[in-house]
Amino acid sequence: MRSIVSFYICYLLCLGLGLACVVCVSYWNHRWRGGFAWDGTALQFNWHPVLMVTGLIVLYGNGAVLYRVPLTWGQNKLPWKLLHATLMLLALVLSIVGLCAVFDFHNAKNTPNLYSLHSWIGIAATALFAIQWVVGMAGFLLPCSPISLRKLLKPVHVWLGGSILWLSIAACISGINEKLFFVLKGNGNGTQSYANLPAEAVLGNSLGVLIVAFGLVVLKILSTLNWQRPESRPEDMAYAPLLQEENE
Amino acid sequence: MRSIVSFYICYLLCLGLGLACVVCVSYWNHRWRGGFAWDGTALQFNWHPVLMVTGLIVLYGNGAVLYRVPLTWGQNKLPWKLLHATLMLLALVLSIVGLCAVFDFHNAKNTPNLYSLHSWIGIAATALFAIQWVVGMAGFLLPCSPISLRKLLKPVHVWLGGSILWLSIAACISGINEKLFFVLKGNGNGTQSYANLPAEAVLGNSLGVLIVAFGLVVLKILSTLNWQRPESRPEDMAYAPLLQEENE
Repeated sequence: MRSIVSFYICYLLCLGLGLACVVCVSYWNHRWRGGFAWDGTALQFNWHPVLMVTGLIVLYGNGAVLYRVPLTWGQNKLPWKLLHATLMLLALVLSIVGLCAVFDFHNAKNTPNLYSLHSWIGIAATALFAIQWVVGMAGFLLPCSPISLRKLLKPVHVWLGGSILWLSIAACISGINEKLFFVLKGNGNGTQSYANLPAEAVLGNSLGVLIVAFGLVVLKILSTLNWQRPESRPEDMAYAPLLQEENE
Repeated sequence: MRSIVSFYICYLLCLGLGLACVVCVSYWNHRWRGGFAWDGTALQFNWHPVLMVTGLIVLYGNGAVLYRVPLTWGQNKLPWKLLHATLMLLALVLSIVGLCAVFDFHNAKNTPNLYSLHSWIGIAATALFAIQWVVGMAGFLLPCSPISLRKLLKPVHVWLGGSILWLSIAACISGINEKLFFVLKGNGNGTQSYANLPAEAVLGNSLGVLIVAFGLVVLKILSTLNWQRPESRPEDMAYAPLLQEENE
């Protein structure tokens, strides 16, 4: 009982911090960066942070902790698997549209793509996410996939799932940091330097802190054994590994 | 047996990638950034990446996986606890000296400290590491600390331990990215722009990739239940939780 209460406190924190991240990144780009468009200008670029934070961090993190919600622990796991896959697909689509926003913007300005470390880490996180989604779909949702394969896949899926999240966080932190150095140069025409911490810098840095806090909560939920779906807990698996019809 | 072989493959990878990170960050600063000094100039700054990568990433990661090495699984855990604490202390000291390098450099140039998101994440990682070390020392090494406190502390220590590592990685990625944008401006006096991916940019980006690969391996080792010290595994604890003399 105490364990369920502390789970729900963490889960509410996860929902609240996720919402705060989306509001913060949207407000930043709306208020300080001129808003949104899809026309190859900087206004198209502005979709990039919003969609990456919303898709690759917030929706992804919420999709990852879904099986930890005790409401989903009924006999029939299938509807929750479908919801998990759907949330992750939505997260992946938003991330890919977010990448298109920045590629289009670069191409319109004849700026090369994928040279910075930020872009290398970001593209690696998205590519791993796409692979994870396809392999997860084939391994855990196709009825023809054998139990032995599912058992083999599961620890890799769980480890890679957490890893994609912290990789995405590293990509976001480096991206926000880079963007703030780009736009806050203090070049005399009204903009202040990043080093003076004007309001936009404080907002951008706070977005980074919110993302990190969200990641800490999600990875805490994922790593707490007591909060795992009972059939997946090692102490339960130890008693009936061979009878387990669906060990994943 | 198969599990031990795969552990040692991962562990060798962890040692090899850690060494590669240290060589790469040292070579970058020696070959492309003019080498090292402690004089308030950019040569003093060069200690910052070297010491942070060596302390906060490589030594820290190796200290974290120590209990997973089967060699350390003997009856007497105390010598390994002392080694774990010593490695972590060394990692903490290197990180603090690495911070002093950049603070001194900023102060000598009258540049403000701690304004960028990189610095916020980096200082948070180091502060959490210092707190984790002090609380870990008091909770797990002082003989007067009761078993009940150790049981309570352990999951927090393990979760925070992994979190500090990925936070440090996010700090390093954003720092390397920022540094490469600072120094590769393509301003005509012989330096090429980051966007053209000159040799220094490829080396810096590769350092980032090596750090991420190191983090993936360390967090894989930490998250694999089969590789935990037997007394700490949930399936073993389930049988004798009350007889366990030292459940940490």
